[in-house]
Amino acid sequence: MENNKQNNYPSIWVQDVLNKDFQLSLRVKETLYSKQSSFQRVDVVDTYEVGKVLLNDGIFMLSEKDEFIYHEMISHVALFSHSSPKRVLIIGGGDGGTAREVLRHECLEKIVMVEIDEAVVEACRLHIPQTGECLNQHDPRFELLIDDGVAYIKNHIQQQQQKFDVIIVDSTDPIGPAAPLFNHSFYQNVKQCLNEGGVVVSQAESPFLLQEEQKHLLQILKDTFESVHVYNYCNMVYPGGPYSFSIAGNGQLDPQKIVREEDAKELFTQYYSLEMHKSSFILPRFQRDYLKQILL
Amino acid sequence: MENNKQNNYPSIWVQDVLNKDFQLSLRVKETLYSKQSSFQRVDVVDTYEVGKVLLNDGIFMLSEKDEFIYHEMISHVALFSHSSPKRVLIIGGGDGGTAREVLRHECLEKIVMVEIDEAVVEACRLHIPQTGECLNQHDPRFELLIDDGVAYIKNHIQQQQQKFDVIIVDSTDPIGPAAPLFNHSFYQNVKQCLNEGGVVVSQAESPFLLQEEQKHLLQILKDTFESVHVYNYCNMVYPGGPYSFSIAGNGQLDPQKIVREEDAKELFTQYYSLEMHKSSFILPRFQRDYLKQILL
Repeated sequence: MENNKQNNYPSIWVQDVLNKDFQLSLRVKETLYSKQSSFQRVDVVDTYEVGKVLLNDGIFMLSEKDEFIYHEMISHVALFSHSSPKRVLIIGGGDGGTAREVLRHECLEKIVMVEIDEAVVEACRLHIPQTGECLNQHDPRFELLIDDGVAYIKNHIQQQQQKFDVIIVDSTDPIGPAAPLFNHSFYQNVKQCLNEGGVVVSQAESPFLLQEEQKHLLQILKDTFESVHVYNYCNMVYPGGPYSFSIAGNGQLDPQKIVREEDAKELFTQYYSLEMHKSSFILPRFQRDYLKQILL
Repeated sequence: MENNKQNNYPSIWVQDVLNKDFQLSLRVKETLYSKQSSFQRVDVVDTYEVGKVLLNDGIFMLSEKDEFIYHEMISHVALFSHSSPKRVLIIGGGDGGTAREVLRHECLEKIVMVEIDEAVVEACRLHIPQTGECLNQHDPRFELLIDDGVAYIKNHIQQQQQKFDVIIVDSTDPIGPAAPLFNHSFYQNVKQCLNEGGVVVSQAESPFLLQEEQKHLLQILKDTFESVHVYNYCNMVYPGGPYSFSIAGNGQLDPQKIVREEDAKELFTQYYSLEMHKSSFILPRFQRDYLKQILL
């Protein structure tokens, strides 16, 4: 109460609704965008501490202040450990942050992004240009499709179209529109869309608040791919400590090995580095222990 | 609102007050302890998601679910990189978690802990035995003093008492009773209490929400010691992403080198590991960049 008086502004807060007993709240300057799409509720609010924030169904997706962590780590680990990536597919990622980081890899020839919800794209184009600007498709290598990622992958196989070197599943949690991305048939299709030596990176939830969801996803990946690895990052707006990505593929995958080391050194990043790439695979012991049961 | 109805319990929350615009909230089962001591307000609440939580002046100090992260990392990094630690001093640490981890090192002969606020000790002895049990001093090597750490260190020098190999400053933030721990004269005295090859580990705040406080502490350490290093960890109840510890000493300190490797391998831990020890010194690039200006 004292704070409110001192600061002389109303106390309006937005609260992440992911967990019913553990919630992060951000003090709000103003609400910039609210839409109920066919898939979910999409909001952009401006906050005092972390800039503009995107919410899907009341869950924090990104903030301007820390989105670089998530987007650098979901993109560069796979792209720098692949020897010669040419074609990348992004499933989800409607805010544009992943596409922005992927597009910085000059060796790439084609980047396709398939986002199911046009409202997310619209919200970020209008209000979070830091991530959304690249969605205006000035880069001729980039193709944005508003489509169901599950259907896209299925059709891609049926039509025997060109495969991908890296597929990035930049999804929300396994509730709402992203639920079909957390099952075996989706990843079996993803596998068929990968070139030899190709990898799939997925948003893999949290070892604390979403441990069961993490185990579920990793079991699917382990059932589908020969090689599955987990790496962690830590940002501001995902509540509850470290969060994970998974990287999976066939053959003896070693995603800690940075094959394109010279390119990695030249890229200016705020979180990612050669050293961070490698050390992100070092997991807390309790996480390593429960994952062992799935990944061994 | 729907959640509340489904779960059929009242919606009572405790909110961390560290930052006025960015707050973590935990749903509360019951309040177990509340006392206004001479130094601060001390509370223990039981929560639905993370077990019992200790708060000093409304700021989350620890939760039962994730306290192992903080306490393993503040203790074992210094103790396993020191070749033969015998004497350890803990300043603060009233909850007992750091003492618990330090006491696991059988090579130690004497552990002194100086906590200014008896209420913190009482609260954790009574309600959080997971950390507080060791404060009952069954271990003859352990001595708990209720005293001002700043004064203790000063007297220790004046009385020419035996020095320490590792000093751990397990303090709250630079507001309230811990404020005198964030200045030059304190660390100059700490330095005089260290044996040759000795190190001081300090709770070093957050690279995001408490970046200025982190820089301030590191400048003091850099002005006082020849060698200063920073390492990170990530837990559930400190809001805003990664948090840091510092480790400082004279001479060419290499805290990434695990000298007591065999002992480290034998200790059962939930977060710490040989690999985590080393990788915790890999900092996000933005943090490395602003620290460079201080530490170079």
